[in-house]
Amino acid sequence: MKIGFQGVHGAYSEAAGKLFFTDTHCEFVGLKNFEDIFKDVQNSSLDYGIIPTENSLAGSVYKNIDLLNKYDLKIVGEVYLKVEHNLLGIKGAVIGDITEVYSHWQALAQCESNINKFLPHATVSEYFDTAGSAKHISELGDKNKASIGSKLAGEVYGLEILKENFEDNNNNYTRFVVIHKKYENLDTKKSARHKTSVTFSGNSVPGFLYSVLKSFAERGINLTKIESRPIPEKTWNYFFYIDFEGRYDDEKVAPALKEILTITPDLKVLGSYPEYIPKL
Amino acid sequence: MKIGFQGVHGAYSEAAGKLFFTDTHCEFVGLKNFEDIFKDVQNSSLDYGIIPTENSLAGSVYKNIDLLNKYDLKIVGEVYLKVEHNLLGIKGAVIGDITEVYSHWQALAQCESNINKFLPHATVSEYFDTAGSAKHISELGDKNKASIGSKLAGEVYGLEILKENFEDNNNNYTRFVVIHKKYENLDTKKSARHKTSVTFSGNSVPGFLYSVLKSFAERGINLTKIESRPIPEKTWNYFFYIDFEGRYDDEKVAPALKEILTITPDLKVLGSYPEYIPKL
Repeated sequence: MKIGFQGVHGAYSEAAGKLFFTDTHCEFVGLKNFEDIFKDVQNSSLDYGIIPTENSLAGSVYKNIDLLNKYDLKIVGEVYLKVEHNLLGIKGAVIGDITEVYSHWQALAQCESNINKFLPHATVSEYFDTAGSAKHISELGDKNKASIGSKLAGEVYGLEILKENFEDNNNNYTRFVVIHKKYENLDTKKSARHKTSVTFSGNSVPGFLYSVLKSFAERGINLTKIESRPIPEKTWNYFFYIDFEGRYDDEKVAPALKEILTITPDLKVLGSYPEYIPKL
Repeated sequence: MKIGFQGVHGAYSEAAGKLFFTDTHCEFVGLKNFEDIFKDVQNSSLDYGIIPTENSLAGSVYKNIDLLNKYDLKIVGEVYLKVEHNLLGIKGAVIGDITEVYSHWQALAQCESNINKFLPHATVSEYFDTAGSAKHISELGDKNKASIGSKLAGEVYGLEILKENFEDNNNNYTRFVVIHKKYENLDTKKSARHKTSVTFSGNSVPGFLYSVLKSFAERGINLTKIESRPIPEKTWNYFFYIDFEGRYDDEKVAPALKEILTITPDLKVLGSYPEYIPKL
């Protein structure tokens, strides 16, 4: 089974994929852009894709919200990953050796205080992704250079963890969703709770959004996320992305969706899937 | 009067500022980061700041939505700028000379088809901002290098427009707002229509957002924008940013805001200001 993620091996996306797909026969394929994952799932060269949709500190991954609306794929699962940054160096290096640290700008920003505390004199260099910077350090084999990345990246490129929990804010989580060509129930554990994701657009924001939310609120359906994004071809018009609790075919959700279809005929149900329960 | 914008002279933000502040005695001050503008307006080293909040193709400028919520400043005006990219070269250069083109990655992306059409063999190089790339070209004085930027950037750095309307999609608009230390009515033209901007947060997204939108919908108040953003200190909690038609003290809006205050006590009215009417 082939599962696509964005980045190189050791990326946080691959770590999230391994949390979701525990079968050791899965092959994880790193792709350059998020859109490549959507294309390859659509043309069946990949079985599934795993994409980040939101980070608890930075907000939505807007590019992926747009791609979920653009492509006709289904969400069949979700997974939450705690983002734990590690300071990675080559074997034998110690923190005192480090004069240059590489990573993605967002990871560098999330570790700013610790960089200043532990590496006050080091040069900070941006790299296109976190796992890529780990690969780079490993290839250079230079004791003075370090990378900031996942534990998985350290394992993949044979690096040592010089300092774990290197992030400044310990509450750093990313939500990922699993995309597939068609609707599929992966609920092997028969989870009691499901979530559903939809997108829709309206002529204008006014009473329209209120009418849609009314269909949910009057039935006691809880929304867990709402996002609005521009429609580039229709200046100052928006589409909405909503996650809510429940299955598309249950007794509360089914009539709500039927009602919303009368308000906005372009309602798209991206999928219903078991709520992720983190392993403790 | 000192007005702060992000970037170097010739930036689209400065062009927007000149649309809004037509007094020739205004001094425009370019700052490195958006947050510097907020700090300097707050400590009164600037009288006003002008910041982009949304682009019709790319969506909200999320950083500025977050800063509007973080700082205690007021919005006193808005302006819409049509983003028109120009291919800029040094005096005497023609399109056939160009072998390298510099600009901000977003401007390069917005001109991708035209770059492929008119400059199929040119190297494309990212620069930290559009006006900065115009300044750079001007300093190099090399006939083979071009920049993509505003007409204003061309004027500021003495460059020639080699090709105007270089953007692929002609419907490219950015909305800017003018921030000030305290509420101020800049409505010299006594505009009939006003807009108001607010932020607020809730315990969770569920029926809460619906209740707030109800206060607007039941009074026929039109929303023109809604945005949700994470609160980093409260994992998976959000604040909302809403723009709507009307003044904070008019007969429809005032009771709606009073009602919303009972639902969410942290409601913050960023300001009421005249709706921008583009000059034709």
